[in-house]
Amino acid sequence: MEGEEPAYVVEETADTVSFLDTRPVFKGHVLIVPRRHVETLADLPPELVVPVFTAAQRHAAAMTTALGADGSFVAMNNTVSQSVPHLHVHVVPRRRKDGLRGFFWPRQRYVEGEAAEYAAIVRAGVAQ
Amino acid sequence: MEGEEPAYVVEETADTVSFLDTRPVFKGHVLIVPRRHVETLADLPPELVVPVFTAAQRHAAAMTTALGADGSFVAMNNTVSQSVPHLHVHVVPRRRKDGLRGFFWPRQRYVEGEAAEYAAIVRAGVAQ
Repeated sequence: MEGEEPAYVVEETADTVSFLDTRPVFKGHVLIVPRRHVETLADLPPELVVPVFTAAQRHAAAMTTALGADGSFVAMNNTVSQSVPHLHVHVVPRRRKDGLRGFFWPRQRYVEGEAAEYAAIVRAGVAQ
Repeated sequence: MEGEEPAYVVEETADTVSFLDTRPVFKGHVLIVPRRHVETLADLPPELVVPVFTAAQRHAAAMTTALGADGSFVAMNNTVSQSVPHLHVHVVPRRRKDGLRGFFWPRQRYVEGEAAEYAAIVRAGVAQ
């Protein structure tokens, strides 16, 4: 992202830029980035929360209204699987039976007592 | 979600509730929902953008600070792959080499001229 001009800009606002991901999950897949350098979601300063996520809302709406998708997938990878260390919000058009469902959300199960334990740990972390 | 009490509540605020997903992608996987009924991200009213996404920030931070994860995955499925028609933000702890990378983001390629076409369509949709 640094010094590179994104080839297919979709939207520019005072605080954000969006452009096509050149290797889309599905065609029309957009990345929204804050202009200011922010590494992960947790680092996003309060004044950029509305600019970034209202941009995500407009792009998610455009997936259905303009691209004719049935829905959208909006996601951020923080640190792990994050290709560049600058926050980018993926907005991907989804269609029913687009083949993504089966392997998209592999799931696990909690054993007895384990869920309560995990909830307590995350609860303490969130409350910090 | 309707009428069901989520079993493992993590955080309650005036506008949001979060709780453990009972079938986690990885253990500690949390869902954040606005208390008010909102179906998809595009439907989230402006006054709930900050409450929902600052909650997402706190939970993403807790994945690393409290759970010891290397990073996090924050995502919303809108309509397609959306298990219940009430906006929920997934916050999933991620670890390096957790096995998710390989099949997580299947990618496509644009053929000549196609990216410009898609960018124009989404641009028009976002500008509406």
